[in-house]
Formats: sequence, structure tokens, C-alpha cells
Amino acid sequence: MNQQYDLSDETVALDAEKNALVIIDQKKLPHRREILVLHTPEEIHAAIRSLQVRGAPAIGVASAIGLYVSANAIETNDYTIFYRSFLKIKEYLATARPTAVNLCWALDRMEKVVAQNSTQSVAEIKKLLRQEAEEIRAEDIRASRSMGEYGLTLIRDGDGILTYCNAGQFAAVKYGTALAPVYIGKEKGYKNHVFACETRPLLQGIRLTAYELCAHGIDVTVICDNMASEVMRQKKVQAVFVGCDHAAANGDCCNKIGTSGLAIIAKYHHIPFYVCAPASTINLQIKSGADIVIEQRAPEEITEMWYCSKMAPQGVNVYNPAFDITPFALVTAIVTDYGIVYPPYKENLVKIIVKGQTSKEG
Amino acid sequence: MNQQYDLSDETVALDAEKNALVIIDQKKLPHRREILVLHTPEEIHAAIRSLQVRGAPAIGVASAIGLYVSANAIETNDYTIFYRSFLKIKEYLATARPTAVNLCWALDRMEKVVAQNSTQSVAEIKKLLRQEAEEIRAEDIRASRSMGEYGLTLIRDGDGILTYCNAGQFAAVKYGTALAPVYIGKEKGYKNHVFACETRPLLQGIRLTAYELCAHGIDVTVICDNMASEVMRQKKVQAVFVGCDHAAANGDCCNKIGTSGLAIIAKYHHIPFYVCAPASTINLQIKSGADIVIEQRAPEEITEMWYCSKMAPQGVNVYNPAFDITPFALVTAIVTDYGIVYPPYKENLVKIIVKGQTSKEG
Repeated sequence: MNQQYDLSDETVALDAEKNALVIIDQKKLPHRREILVLHTPEEIHAAIRSLQVRGAPAIGVASAIGLYVSANAIETNDYTIFYRSFLKIKEYLATARPTAVNLCWALDRMEKVVAQNSTQSVAEIKKLLRQEAEEIRAEDIRASRSMGEYGLTLIRDGDGILTYCNAGQFAAVKYGTALAPVYIGKEKGYKNHVFACETRPLLQGIRLTAYELCAHGIDVTVICDNMASEVMRQKKVQAVFVGCDHAAANGDCCNKIGTSGLAIIAKYHHIPFYVCAPASTINLQIKSGADIVIEQRAPEEITEMWYCSKMAPQGVNVYNPAFDITPFALVTAIVTDYGIVYPPYKENLVKIIVKGQTSKEG
Repeated sequence: MNQQYDLSDETVALDAEKNALVIIDQKKLPHRREILVLHTPEEIHAAIRSLQVRGAPAIGVASAIGLYVSANAIETNDYTIFYRSFLKIKEYLATARPTAVNLCWALDRMEKVVAQNSTQSVAEIKKLLRQEAEEIRAEDIRASRSMGEYGLTLIRDGDGILTYCNAGQFAAVKYGTALAPVYIGKEKGYKNHVFACETRPLLQGIRLTAYELCAHGIDVTVICDNMASEVMRQKKVQAVFVGCDHAAANGDCCNKIGTSGLAIIAKYHHIPFYVCAPASTINLQIKSGADIVIEQRAPEEITEMWYCSKMAPQGVNVYNPAFDITPFALVTAIVTDYGIVYPPYKENLVKIIVKGQTSKEG
């Protein structure tokens, strides 16, 4: 355990002095709060691949810092050689996980810095890469804060909020996406009760969401994923807030496996279903969810608990998709950092993204 | 491990010679196949309470045999003393679990034998109790076989069948309820693929359903409960078959927590949702599901895996209902041992039960 870093409020950081990406090992939580200080592309790739850092926005920030740290270690003054090495690392990091759009989005932004500054020295480009990585990180915090403010307008003081997987501070740098309204609400004196679905197979809900909400003094009750319908039937929940790994232009939302079932159940119980997605997660190039690649993960994630205690008969078939697509018709609204988007998404997502980018540039 | 019993096809038995209830310890599966030989009311109560034997029909049979074994050990020739001791044991066993109707149903049948034979000797009553327990067990096997035959008419060769929790041979004596059509189909040369939801928190689906289907050479794929919607969307499943712990007169079905959510999701995907319930599980005295008591179980079932590895932050709130109610409107048909019942259930459940009882008595 590395005591010198305090990641209690901001979970992904750059240690410029040590040229390292600094994260909390999310696989060890809630047992141990272990800080990882990562230097090489291999270490960074492994951390993303094995979910030591996870959550679409956090993956974006971690990969940007990771790419900077890796590029900063390239020993050359030759632009062409630097760019070639940079691209190799970038393409390698891009393979860490297939579904979250933020990974490639952040890596592409970093590459643009190299591509657009061919007249600069390699030393100067490294400086610009650091600035870009830090800007991506700062933007992420601003985006979460903004989603929190917008999302809070959809919640009343005292409401029960059901959430899924972890879309809190561990999934972004600070505040998170789906939990951002709850955190901002807490700052303003709201008292909301959160129901956290445990989220099988890797239990991000019980391990991470419950952990961070408890740590911030927010009331949370853990349920198994299959108990959501019963909690809704009892009217303990007034709204569902989930995160998003990849949203398509038509409003289809790709998120942790089980999200689509939860949306169907929420609709049946007439409970609003809100997806919180920063603009970086919305991919207007993708027409619908059918075009999003769904990551398939190892059977052992289901059949073994933390790789120690087997709970399935030997050799049984296992199906283990990491994500699913929630059809836009089941989504009440998409809360972005540029504002709340209501159906029809096909028209309104383009509008808000254009509006957001214009106001940012202006 | 007790090698002298072969419970591979029939999972609940009476050892009359040893005056014992013999079961497989379902908590140890799939790691160890351990046979339990139980003699005292305390042992039998604990086995039911702790889910060493579970599944509504199996609980019914086990409690009938358990009550016989306990009554057989009462040392008196005096009818009044015997009846008083018998009632004490009966009432004690009835508290083992609150939701499954079969527990009280079987215990009431046993009591009737004592009540209706006050002119007989205690020795004779003990004989009649044994006959009644053996009859309850034999009826259960016939009921499963019958549900299997009826249920099979709803399945085509090659269909994908999704099931939940364990409603197979471990939940009854043989064949089970929801899995009975699959077993009978297998006898007739059908090749069906079963998707078994793992069923949190106690994983009866992955531990028991996958285990028994593998053991009988039936294709099975395990999924987490939150993956059911994705499997249905991909059209891998043509029907859902679940068991039932307690059905009300209006067709509301109480079953393992998560069943109602699954029914909502199946309806959304236009997949038929069948509940398999022997007549002993249908309680015409209960108007609707709202009147069924839902058992609440210990938080540790969710926060700890097999009571060894903690996976939740310390002191977090947990909600852990063992069952939920599936509204009759979500149930395509109820498969009973007397035939298939379609809506309107309020009229048709009474009809089939009266018809079944008449044909049995006639």
C-alpha cells in the first residue's frame, strides 16, 4: 500500500515526477485499498484489461494518462521515430477492452496532438501530450459535476434511487456519472437512499458502489440484481440512474450486462430510467446498438468467486457477456454534461452535442 | 459420506429400518455429494431451515417423512399423549420455513391420519403415518411425471428452455417441476438446451440445476440472472419454465426472488412463461399473492460467499427477500399434475383442482 497518494476524492491521477499513472486497484476493494503506480504500456494495458481500473470515463482518463506516461518514456528526438513508437503503444492500449468508447476516444485525442504538431520538437510534443491528458482528466471532472447538476433536477429530496454496477467516483475521476446527482444532492443537503444492485458476475455494485457511498456517508442498501423488481413494486425506488459505456446516435445505450433487463422492469413499474453519459461516451458515428461490439469475458468470472471458491459443476457451459444494449425506447432521458436529452434521441442527441461543442469552442 | 444410499434418481427417502429421513445435503453440492441421515425433529427442522433440503415439493415430502420418523419415536401407547406429542412436533416443523405451502400441506395431511384414527392403537397409527408419508412421496413422483408429460406438449424438440433457481429433481423427489418436461423430453429423444440462471444469493441454479442436468447428460449453459434478457433478445430461448412455492387462487405465483422480474422480461421479448406447480402447491384459500408471507433471510447470504469470503463493505444495509410474487397477468400457463391451466386462472384453477381430486377419488 502506497500511503503517499490520497485518491479518496479523485480516483485516477498522474504523478508527473515519477512519470506514472496512479490508480486505486478496484479488484481489491472493498477488502484492501491498494494504490497502483504504473509506468509501462504493459502494466497499463493489464490494469485496464483486468478491471483494476474500469468504468468508461475512468478508462478514458487512465488511457490518456497512460499513453502520455508511455510516450514520455520514448527515447528519441526524431519525430518520425517518436510517432511510430507512439502509434504502436496507442494501438496496443486500444486493444485492452473492446466496448467502452472512451478508450479509443481518449487515445484518438492524444494522437491528434502528435499528428498536428509535426513541426515541434519531441520534447515539446511530450509537454503538449501531458497538457492534453491533464485536460481530459479535468474535463472528466467538470463533465461529472455538470451531469450531477442536471441529473439532480430529476430527483426530489428523499427519493429512493436505484443504481446498477458502479457509475460513481470509481467509474470516473470524481462524482461519477449515475451517482453524480446523488453526490451533488448530498452537497445541497438532500437525503436520498440508494439501492445498489450487486451486479454479477464481478459485483461492482456491492464492492465499489456500496463502498464509495458508505465512505461518503450516503445511505445505501445492497440487493441482488434479481431483487430490483421487488424493490420497485414496493415503491421504494422513484428513479433508476445508470451509467453508459457507449451510446449510439439513436439513443441505444450499451452498459453493464443486465442494464437492459432493469430498464424493461422499470418501464413495467412506471419508474423513470435515466442513463448518465458524458458527451465523450456518445458516438454519433454508430447508428444503433446493433453495431456495438459486446465484450465476452472468461467463464471463471461466473463459476468461481475471486478465483478461489468454485461454485459450478466441472466443465459446465457458461455464457458471460460483459455488456448489453438498452433500446432507446426504454430510456426516459439521457443526462449528458451538456444537458438532459429527451426522445426523439436521433434528433436531440446531435443537437445537444453540437450545442455543447460550440459553447466549449466559443 | 454415506455410500449405502443411492439417491441419484430419487432425492428424498425414508429408511424405515433406521427410522430416518435420508436426503442429499444440497448446501454441499456441487463440491461434495453428502448424504444426511436424520432422526430427530431438531435435525429435520435444521435441514429444512438451512436449505439442506429445499424446493417446495421436496420440503413437503421431507417434512412428511420427518414427521413420521419423529412420531414413530414417541414412546407411549396412550392416544392422547401420543397426539399431544405429535402436534408439538408438527407445529415445530411447520416453523422451519414460512413461504412454501407444501410444508404445512404435508404436515396437515399427516395430522389428519392421527385425528381420524382415534380408535386405533398407537402402533397402528404409526403404521398408517408411514403409509401416508410414503404415499405423499409416491404422489410427488407421479405429479412430477405428470407435469413433465403435460409440459412437454409446450416444447418443441430443439427449443432453448430458460429456467430459474432449482426446480428439478433436487426440488422434488424425481424429475422436479419445471425441469420435468426436459427430463421426460430427454427420455423421448428430444434434444433441448437449457439456460440455467445462477439465482443469487444462494446460487441454486449454478450449483444444483447445472449439476443435475450435467449428471443426466442434458445440455446446459449457466448465466448470471442479469443475462436472461440478453439471451432472450438473441432468440436463444423459446420458453421459460419455473417452479412455484405457493400459488394463489387468482394465479399469482410465489417463487424464488427474481422470478417476477424474469416474467416481465419474458413478456417484453414475447417468450411464453410457464409456471410448473403440482396441485399441492396451489392454495385456493389464498385469494392473491398479496396474502403470501415472504420469508426474509440473513444479509450474510448476499455479503458473504459460503460464509468465507466477504465481498461487501462492513456494515452496509442489505435487503434479502427469499421470494417474490409473479402477477398472474405475466404467467402464460400454469402446468399442474392435473393438466395445463390457462387464464382466466380464477375460474380455471378451481376447475382443474376439483376435476383432479374427483378423478383421484373416483
